[in-house]
Amino acid sequence: MQMPEPDARVLTRKAEIVARLREVLPADAVIDDEAETRAYECDALTAYRCPPLCAVLPATTEEVSAVLTICHEEGVPVVPRGSGTSLAGGALPTADSVILGVARMNEVLETDYDNRFIRVQTGRTNLSVTGAVEEEDFFYAPDPSSQLACAIAGNIAMNSGGAHCLKYGVTTNNLLGVTMVLMDGTVIELGGAHLDPGGLDLLGLVCGSEGQLGVVTEATLRILRKPEGARPVLIAFNSNEVAGECVSDIIKAGVLPVAIEFMDRPCIVACEAFAKAGYPDCEALLIVEVEGSEAEIAEQLGLITQIARRHDPVELREAQDADEAGRIWLGRKSAFGAMGQINDYMCLDGTIPVSALPQVLRRIGELSREVGLEVANVFHAGDGNMHPLILFNANQPGELEKCEALGAEILKLCVEVGGCLTGEHGVGIEKRDLMTVQYAPADLEAQMAVKDVFDPGWLLNPAKVFPLAVSEARRAVAAE
Amino acid sequence: MQMPEPDARVLTRKAEIVARLREVLPADAVIDDEAETRAYECDALTAYRCPPLCAVLPATTEEVSAVLTICHEEGVPVVPRGSGTSLAGGALPTADSVILGVARMNEVLETDYDNRFIRVQTGRTNLSVTGAVEEEDFFYAPDPSSQLACAIAGNIAMNSGGAHCLKYGVTTNNLLGVTMVLMDGTVIELGGAHLDPGGLDLLGLVCGSEGQLGVVTEATLRILRKPEGARPVLIAFNSNEVAGECVSDIIKAGVLPVAIEFMDRPCIVACEAFAKAGYPDCEALLIVEVEGSEAEIAEQLGLITQIARRHDPVELREAQDADEAGRIWLGRKSAFGAMGQINDYMCLDGTIPVSALPQVLRRIGELSREVGLEVANVFHAGDGNMHPLILFNANQPGELEKCEALGAEILKLCVEVGGCLTGEHGVGIEKRDLMTVQYAPADLEAQMAVKDVFDPGWLLNPAKVFPLAVSEARRAVAAE
Repeated sequence: MQMPEPDARVLTRKAEIVARLREVLPADAVIDDEAETRAYECDALTAYRCPPLCAVLPATTEEVSAVLTICHEEGVPVVPRGSGTSLAGGALPTADSVILGVARMNEVLETDYDNRFIRVQTGRTNLSVTGAVEEEDFFYAPDPSSQLACAIAGNIAMNSGGAHCLKYGVTTNNLLGVTMVLMDGTVIELGGAHLDPGGLDLLGLVCGSEGQLGVVTEATLRILRKPEGARPVLIAFNSNEVAGECVSDIIKAGVLPVAIEFMDRPCIVACEAFAKAGYPDCEALLIVEVEGSEAEIAEQLGLITQIARRHDPVELREAQDADEAGRIWLGRKSAFGAMGQINDYMCLDGTIPVSALPQVLRRIGELSREVGLEVANVFHAGDGNMHPLILFNANQPGELEKCEALGAEILKLCVEVGGCLTGEHGVGIEKRDLMTVQYAPADLEAQMAVKDVFDPGWLLNPAKVFPLAVSEARRAVAAE
Repeated sequence: MQMPEPDARVLTRKAEIVARLREVLPADAVIDDEAETRAYECDALTAYRCPPLCAVLPATTEEVSAVLTICHEEGVPVVPRGSGTSLAGGALPTADSVILGVARMNEVLETDYDNRFIRVQTGRTNLSVTGAVEEEDFFYAPDPSSQLACAIAGNIAMNSGGAHCLKYGVTTNNLLGVTMVLMDGTVIELGGAHLDPGGLDLLGLVCGSEGQLGVVTEATLRILRKPEGARPVLIAFNSNEVAGECVSDIIKAGVLPVAIEFMDRPCIVACEAFAKAGYPDCEALLIVEVEGSEAEIAEQLGLITQIARRHDPVELREAQDADEAGRIWLGRKSAFGAMGQINDYMCLDGTIPVSALPQVLRRIGELSREVGLEVANVFHAGDGNMHPLILFNANQPGELEKCEALGAEILKLCVEVGGCLTGEHGVGIEKRDLMTVQYAPADLEAQMAVKDVFDPGWLLNPAKVFPLAVSEARRAVAAE
């Protein structure tokens, strides 16, 4: 992956820059020791690594503002970082950048059950937001697989979803307001604990902007009342096509399960070996979960199983108790871990129209055979968000490149059938050069013009989101 | 309401501008006759009127692009107009502007039930979107009171909601993609029939931008399966406070009605006189509607009535049949018409935290008595979107000004308690000068900088959204 040439002026001034940062932050909040900065050299896309100039760990909005003011004055690129769980390289440093980690900013600032919101510092982890309100039977809905570790800051940057977003929406649907620090240190407030407040919807713009526009330090999040109960049903088919048709029919029938998860054979085999979930021997597996009171669950599952039976499933198993429900989910939730045990893999993230599922799976199979790399498919089928996992051997020279090329083909296929390059992982560095597949030049120009406004020097999270050539050109013009 | 000085250069070139527009549009699509342009002199905020330079009625995206290219070259302001139902003056012309009406652009371009979307030209009315899919038992969820007349273009401009947005969200939650023409004639595509496609979320930015960024000509909208049934319950209280507490408790309990509507005594009296809905004699009335299968409806209504009974209602009436349900809603839905029969009124639109309802109603009562103008309150209580109606006599000199001043006080109150200036009507000209109450200078500057990008000459929908002094200053700089 090509990275920009580091700015020599920044590299030579490292000592002065670090000294200035130490003036505004506690001593232990500025990390410039080479061994220690290694901890920030990559995120969860570990194929790409680069130690930063230094890392800072501010604890408040004011400290973030002080850091950005200095970096702005010094012309130093800044890479904001949540918990570093990005699968798209969204927090990959450049050699001349300051990593701005929000890990110390994890306070709950306000909880309001009457108006159903919580205000937190954005370094707080996703799951600990729910942790802060579950005593009162509330929860925060978006549930990325990494929810134990990932920070709200990263969820906002990538507009993260999760298995349950079919019903509850993704981050943008659960985000009410933010405090954001602009690159020049200005602090602005967007949205709040109320409906859209008039004027331009900068909150919607910021959500999913991958750290390109500012550093989000505080967030007001919608919290929801926990449902009374939930139950998954497992439906197995001997054909991907038929499983895809079953998904389409469930969606069309107007039932709204909280989740419809799909796994194909390579994924089922690996998960079963790992989690012993008791998955049947079949080509395609659906896990459909519904929520509500006992009566609502029974009614929805009745309708879903009725639709499923029309497609002649190999097996149809309603969870009879919490144990069985847990086991059904354990298999799915450990899919990535299971894959990692048997292979290196690259996890893709694309979105397609639900009705294109069978066609896309068929074509992925063909591409996989042509290239000679196996692809395991696991995805949020209800909303068409695919996560094909390409299996490869990282120790075999050339396989990573083959894998990257296959990944690009699969994502282009997603766009071709009317879908898009990413569902929830974001563009990061991984997909920046594919943006031209999704967007016409005028579309991309409109996005970059907005970036110009918030970050005229193109200092924030460099080399991400936009094709490297165009973002570097933009940065060069700004630097003149 | 102060309006900007018209651009003399534009006024003197009117004949040439009209001639150029006639070159790119059919003869009957350019209206410059003074009597005919009167039809466009105001929208539903009829207190303010100004005939435009001329009006155009393009039929395609290409024609819109041709019109904007000419206006851009000539430096002519453009006011986009849907059906002209804005209650905030969002489509009020200036004397030097071209009204760009999308009324002729009402085609359905694509319907896809498998993937649950419809693509339409944006001049199509809200209700006729549902009309195009209801044979297949689908519907388009956002339902502004004006849905029979209002255009999707206006819904997108104002991010419109409606009584049912408590469950289904507002326009931004149901909008998947748009085709938009920029002021210089460039056509861009934002979003599509898939999840958030990576890069900056310009779709979210455009939704609710009140025609400040471009002209949206086509929209891809989420369609939903119609619920099996719906039933309202009417709950009457002898105190606004207690009704407000009941709303809070319903929300907190985690039931999600499709609508919770609230009317206070002045509104109940007027509606009852008009619609004969059989509303009881009381201080505050809630209409709570739930949807689903018979079992779901029964369960939800059971819970809601149980909560309501704890607050000792004067009356609690479940609709026993479709007729009674219709009558219960007829009263609420004719509230504005009923008010109009007995008084002139100004309809406000603000949002508050649900828990602040009793406090805000009390304070509105005090303000109303101080000023000597009656205020009737009708609102979407579930999500805190208020529509106070200030009653006044337009024929009595000075009353409009008194009414405007009271309206400003009430909206400031909304912001003070943690709410915002608008729920769904937008800012328009009505609330532009109150934007400084909601936003700090840095917040407003961020919005205006984004406007600069899309419309550097500040030609699109002038004198709206931003305080007049600052938008005029911006425009003057751009014109230099």
